[in-house]
Amino acid sequence: MTLAIQFDDVRAAAARLEGQAHRTPVLRSRAIDALTGAQVFMKAENFQRMGAFKFRGAYNALSQFSAAQRQRGVIAFSSGNHAQAIALSARLLGMPSIIVMPQDAPAIKVQATRGYQDGQPGSEVLLYDRYTQDREAIGRQLAQERGMTLIPPYDHPHVMAGQGTAALELIEQTAADGPLDALLVCVGGGGLISGCAVAARHLLPAIQVWGVEPEAGNDTQRSLAEGRIVHIDTPRTIADGAQTQHSGELTFPVIQALVAGVVTASDDQLVQTMRLLAERAKIVVEPTGVLGLAALLHRAQGLPDLRGRRVGVILSGGNVDMQRFAALMAA
Amino acid sequence: MTLAIQFDDVRAAAARLEGQAHRTPVLRSRAIDALTGAQVFMKAENFQRMGAFKFRGAYNALSQFSAAQRQRGVIAFSSGNHAQAIALSARLLGMPSIIVMPQDAPAIKVQATRGYQDGQPGSEVLLYDRYTQDREAIGRQLAQERGMTLIPPYDHPHVMAGQGTAALELIEQTAADGPLDALLVCVGGGGLISGCAVAARHLLPAIQVWGVEPEAGNDTQRSLAEGRIVHIDTPRTIADGAQTQHSGELTFPVIQALVAGVVTASDDQLVQTMRLLAERAKIVVEPTGVLGLAALLHRAQGLPDLRGRRVGVILSGGNVDMQRFAALMAA
Repeated sequence: MTLAIQFDDVRAAAARLEGQAHRTPVLRSRAIDALTGAQVFMKAENFQRMGAFKFRGAYNALSQFSAAQRQRGVIAFSSGNHAQAIALSARLLGMPSIIVMPQDAPAIKVQATRGYQDGQPGSEVLLYDRYTQDREAIGRQLAQERGMTLIPPYDHPHVMAGQGTAALELIEQTAADGPLDALLVCVGGGGLISGCAVAARHLLPAIQVWGVEPEAGNDTQRSLAEGRIVHIDTPRTIADGAQTQHSGELTFPVIQALVAGVVTASDDQLVQTMRLLAERAKIVVEPTGVLGLAALLHRAQGLPDLRGRRVGVILSGGNVDMQRFAALMAA
Repeated sequence: MTLAIQFDDVRAAAARLEGQAHRTPVLRSRAIDALTGAQVFMKAENFQRMGAFKFRGAYNALSQFSAAQRQRGVIAFSSGNHAQAIALSARLLGMPSIIVMPQDAPAIKVQATRGYQDGQPGSEVLLYDRYTQDREAIGRQLAQERGMTLIPPYDHPHVMAGQGTAALELIEQTAADGPLDALLVCVGGGGLISGCAVAARHLLPAIQVWGVEPEAGNDTQRSLAEGRIVHIDTPRTIADGAQTQHSGELTFPVIQALVAGVVTASDDQLVQTMRLLAERAKIVVEPTGVLGLAALLHRAQGLPDLRGRRVGVILSGGNVDMQRFAALMAA
C-alpha cells in the first residue's frame, strides 16, 4: 500500500517554508539529561510562528493552492493552533480565510485568530452554536457558495508533509555528533507524527519513532493494537491539542508502517514536565507540547530503556492561556 | 580619571568564557516590535548557565585566581544569582566555595546553591542570623581563618568585565544588519551595566546605553543627578536582583562616564512585561530581567523616542520560583 506522503514531499515542503517558518532552535538541558540518563534534543516548536508546529503544515498546504483557489480562499474548522496557523498563512499568501469556531470558544482564541487575519479582505472568524448547528453543513455551504477550499487539521498530505519538516530540521541540526536513536512525538490526529516518521525513517532508517498520547485519549495506541482506526469520545485531558477522537485515514497507515509504537502520559505528568521546562529551561510549553518529554521522563510503559541514547523530542507548541498556565504551575 | 575596566578587559573575559558560558541567543518578537515601534533585539541571558548573566562575571573572576587562591577557595555573600554563579564557577574550576546566606533565605535558593556546589570538597552554604550576626564579620573571620578570597557581587573589575561580555556578544550577533542605536540594561549595583557600557561604547561609539532601575529603588538615577553615590534603604520591589542600596565605587564612575541616563519601571510594568514575554515569546524571565524591556514598552520618562530604532535589551535572567511566577502571571 502506498503511503499518503513520501520523503520527497517533506523535502519539498521544507523548500516552500524556507524564509517563512522559523528554523526553531534545538534546546539542551543538563538537568533533563541528568533526569533521563539520555542525551535529549528538544525541538522548540513553541518558538515557531504563531507558537506551534501547525504553521508548517498550514503554510505548506496553502502555498500549493492554484491561482483560482487563492482568490477564493481557505476555510478551517478549529479553535486551536490549526485556526491560527491557517489564518496567518492565508494572510501571508494574500488570500481570505474563514475560521469556523464554536460560539463558546475562549474569547482570547477568537481574538488571536482575528489578529492573525489582520485586515486581510474577506477574512473572518465565524461562530456557530455547537448545540444547534452542524459545522459540517456550515462548511459545505460556505465551500459551495464561495468556492473556498477546506483544509483539515491533519488528514491531508500537504499538512502531513509540512509537519514533517520539524523532524527533518531536528535531524539536520543534531547530525554533527551522530544520529538520533529515538524520536518522541505527541499524537493527536497524527499529522505531526506521520510527517515526522516519514522524514526520520528516511534519513535515519534505524531510528525508533514513538508516539505519545494523553492517557485519557489513547485511541491511536488502541488502533495500532486492533489494526483499525478506533473512535473514542472526546477525551478529558489538559492536552487540548490531542483531544482528537480518532486518527486520520491518511495518517494512520503511515503510523502503522513507520512508528515503533504509541505510549501515554498522564495529565499529572504533563504538568510536572511543564513545570520542569519553565524552571530549568525557562520556556513556556503547552500541555500537548510536552507529551513526548513527559513519556521519557516518566519512563512510560512500553517505551524501551533510552538511557545512554540520543533522543529527539518535539516540543510542539507554546500556546497556553497565561491564567491557565499560572494555575497549572501553582498546582 | 581612569575607569576600573577597559574594553580589553571585556575582550579577555570573553576568551576566558569561551566554551564555559553559553553564547545565548538573541530573540526577536514581531509582537514586541509592533508594540514598541522599534526593532528590538533581546539577549536571552535567562538561558545562560545557572539561569542568569551572573555566571559571566563569577567565572571570569574565579578563573583568574592564583594557584594558592584556588586551593583555598572563594567566599560570597548572596542569596541570589551571584550565589549560584559563584557556586557553579567554583565547582567547574575545582575549588571550594562558601556561600553565606541569611538563615531565612528561601529553602529553594539554599538547595539550588548546594546543587551547584555538588560535592565539591570544602564547599558549603553557611547560614547566619541577620538579626544577631554581622555578615561582614563572618566574612572577615572566614577569610582570615581559611585564607579564602571574597568575590563581591558587582564592585570588582573582573566581575564587571565578565558581565560586559553579554553586550559584546549581543553587538556581534546583531552586527550583520547594522549597528544598534540604543541598549537598555537593568541596574542593581551596576556590574552588568558598567561592563556592557564599556563594551558597547567601544564597539559602537554612537550607541546610547540606558540603565533601568525599579521605580522604588532609583538610587543610581539619583546618584547621577547628585554626582555622588546615593545610599537608600533596601527598596520594596519584585525586582529582587535590583534591591541594592547603592552602586559601587568602581561601577559608578563607569556609569557616569558612559551611560546616557537611568530611567525607571514600576512593579506593575514588570509584571505586564513578564506576561507578554511568556505569552508571545514563550519564555520565563525574572522580574529584574525585564526592567529594560519594560522601560521601552512603557516609554519610561526620560527615555528618548526609540521608534524606528534598533534597540538591544538584556533579559538578564530567568530564576524565579514557579509559585511566585504563577502568582504574578495570574494577577
